[in-house]
Amino acid sequence: MKAFVYNGPSKMALEERPKPTILTPTDAIVRITKTTICGTDLHILKGDVATCPPGRILGHEGVGVIDSVGSAVSAYKAGDRVLISCISACGKCEYCRRQMYSHCTTGGWILGNKIDGTQAEFVRIPYADTSLYPIPDGADEEALVMLSDILPTGFECGVLNGKVQPGSTVAIVGSGPIGLAALLTAQFFSPARIIAIDLDDNRLDIAKRFGATDSINSSDGKAVEILMAMTGNRGVDTAIEAVGVPATFELCEKIIAPGGTIANIGVHGTKVDLHLENLWDRNLTITTRLVDTVSTPMLLNTVQAGKIDPKLLITHHFKLEQIMDAYDTFSRAADTKALKVIIEA
Amino acid sequence: MKAFVYNGPSKMALEERPKPTILTPTDAIVRITKTTICGTDLHILKGDVATCPPGRILGHEGVGVIDSVGSAVSAYKAGDRVLISCISACGKCEYCRRQMYSHCTTGGWILGNKIDGTQAEFVRIPYADTSLYPIPDGADEEALVMLSDILPTGFECGVLNGKVQPGSTVAIVGSGPIGLAALLTAQFFSPARIIAIDLDDNRLDIAKRFGATDSINSSDGKAVEILMAMTGNRGVDTAIEAVGVPATFELCEKIIAPGGTIANIGVHGTKVDLHLENLWDRNLTITTRLVDTVSTPMLLNTVQAGKIDPKLLITHHFKLEQIMDAYDTFSRAADTKALKVIIEA
Repeated sequence: MKAFVYNGPSKMALEERPKPTILTPTDAIVRITKTTICGTDLHILKGDVATCPPGRILGHEGVGVIDSVGSAVSAYKAGDRVLISCISACGKCEYCRRQMYSHCTTGGWILGNKIDGTQAEFVRIPYADTSLYPIPDGADEEALVMLSDILPTGFECGVLNGKVQPGSTVAIVGSGPIGLAALLTAQFFSPARIIAIDLDDNRLDIAKRFGATDSINSSDGKAVEILMAMTGNRGVDTAIEAVGVPATFELCEKIIAPGGTIANIGVHGTKVDLHLENLWDRNLTITTRLVDTVSTPMLLNTVQAGKIDPKLLITHHFKLEQIMDAYDTFSRAADTKALKVIIEA
Repeated sequence: MKAFVYNGPSKMALEERPKPTILTPTDAIVRITKTTICGTDLHILKGDVATCPPGRILGHEGVGVIDSVGSAVSAYKAGDRVLISCISACGKCEYCRRQMYSHCTTGGWILGNKIDGTQAEFVRIPYADTSLYPIPDGADEEALVMLSDILPTGFECGVLNGKVQPGSTVAIVGSGPIGLAALLTAQFFSPARIIAIDLDDNRLDIAKRFGATDSINSSDGKAVEILMAMTGNRGVDTAIEAVGVPATFELCEKIIAPGGTIANIGVHGTKVDLHLENLWDRNLTITTRLVDTVSTPMLLNTVQAGKIDPKLLITHHFKLEQIMDAYDTFSRAADTKALKVIIEA
């Protein structure tokens, strides 16, 4: 089968690989119909993800059709259409039983990281019963690819952790795909204002189209001043960090109102300065989270009911044969205006 | 009247001052019967609290008897015994209506800071109806002095924010009075283990007597190693920071289990390093809070029911005339083994 392989920092290729086989009775083999690329895949290609060795097939998102199942799999059979969660969950360990699937002691984020992933014609999915979701009849597969990772990440790590509430004021720092996923799902809870902050006017325009009430281009260094003026010098109830660098996290520290919540989504590579000398008495909550994908069934319902349209996030389409082009387009997002790209296998 | 006055960095005196008078209809004048000294008073004396000018009568804790009330005060009358909250709450502003009294727009922590405080024979209490609590008949006044600040602080900022739960594992970093207040009130929720961490063996012995199941002296720099071994390399569900320096906060970052909560109580004077490169995916919550004293009625009930004995925190007694000695004893706690001192007016 064809598969996109990470061969060490800045080395990658579409290669011919053997079709995966059932290794344990809880496995399923899924024939991929559609997959996509995540910012994390770019981190891997830079050599920044120590858990992912050269030779790995990348990808942790996708939809497909069950090809075969192990003897212990009871929820799926060959031919079933399935949504693949980016998080594999054994369903049995301490963390799974607390619904913290991201910290499953033998699963978590392993697809396209510790084991081969979804950017291929077939993928082996461990713990199939608790790591796949059935695709309802008539559902649009392309939209559902956004439910493998990006929508639950924006929703769980940003919106739920950030305690977005009716009438509240929310800032989303970063209008890339993940910030936009938070923006789309924040609107479930009817906040009064959603202020999008980014360096790129194109992305801010998209944020306004997606439902942001206000936008601030932070490239002139005056974002704090502008936001405080916008909110009567009060700040925001929720600040969602959707970038992953110290400057954006520290911006959140400056714009959060007393009693507010800073919800971190960004993948950080270095420490940040936490200014407790200003914040110790501000009744703040700061949260971090790797997506657990506990909200996937809920999000499926919202998509089926037309409450959100995840296809808004899709800007480009490629065939699996063109995946090198897809990576090129996705990695040069500032030029190509790419958000999420769909890759058809 | 006699009053303890801050006269600029390292300058203080017991002085003769005029008895306070009603300034606004919502004021009460309280004759102090018992007060105490807080670590924050020592910060003021060092000149570290910018909001507190020279000439200020210190103190934000105490019990007493109503001397007179303004025309708008309806909950209290002369002769009533009252517990003074360290937080003054107008009861009307946005933050008061959210029960975030610490951020009351015209109150908050003003006593012994922005207005004269309780280390005197009389004190003016603004917003008396919503800043005082009635003392039940037969209650022990001395125990209730601990409810002005230290017990609600340990409970709200440490235990409630830290989400201490039945069966959970808790570390309390710092076994000073505030850490011990968190330790006493954490036991309301029946955690499986409470691990006390401090540099001082005497304080750790006290922590064990007060209910800590384990203790770690962190002076050899091996606290993380010892705690991780103690918890099967898992860490703790709740880490309560009760010191207020970078080293202790950063210790909490190292011992917190996935899904855990770091609840900061400490008053910090500088930034800390938040190691998001390790923590971004750990599903953590970090909280800060200035006590709101919303839990005072609940804590009063627990004291009256014998669920906790706040008098355990009291080590020394002084008369108001001896307040200079009281400060000396309290400030040299490592030598004097002082926790809280009671000052009788």
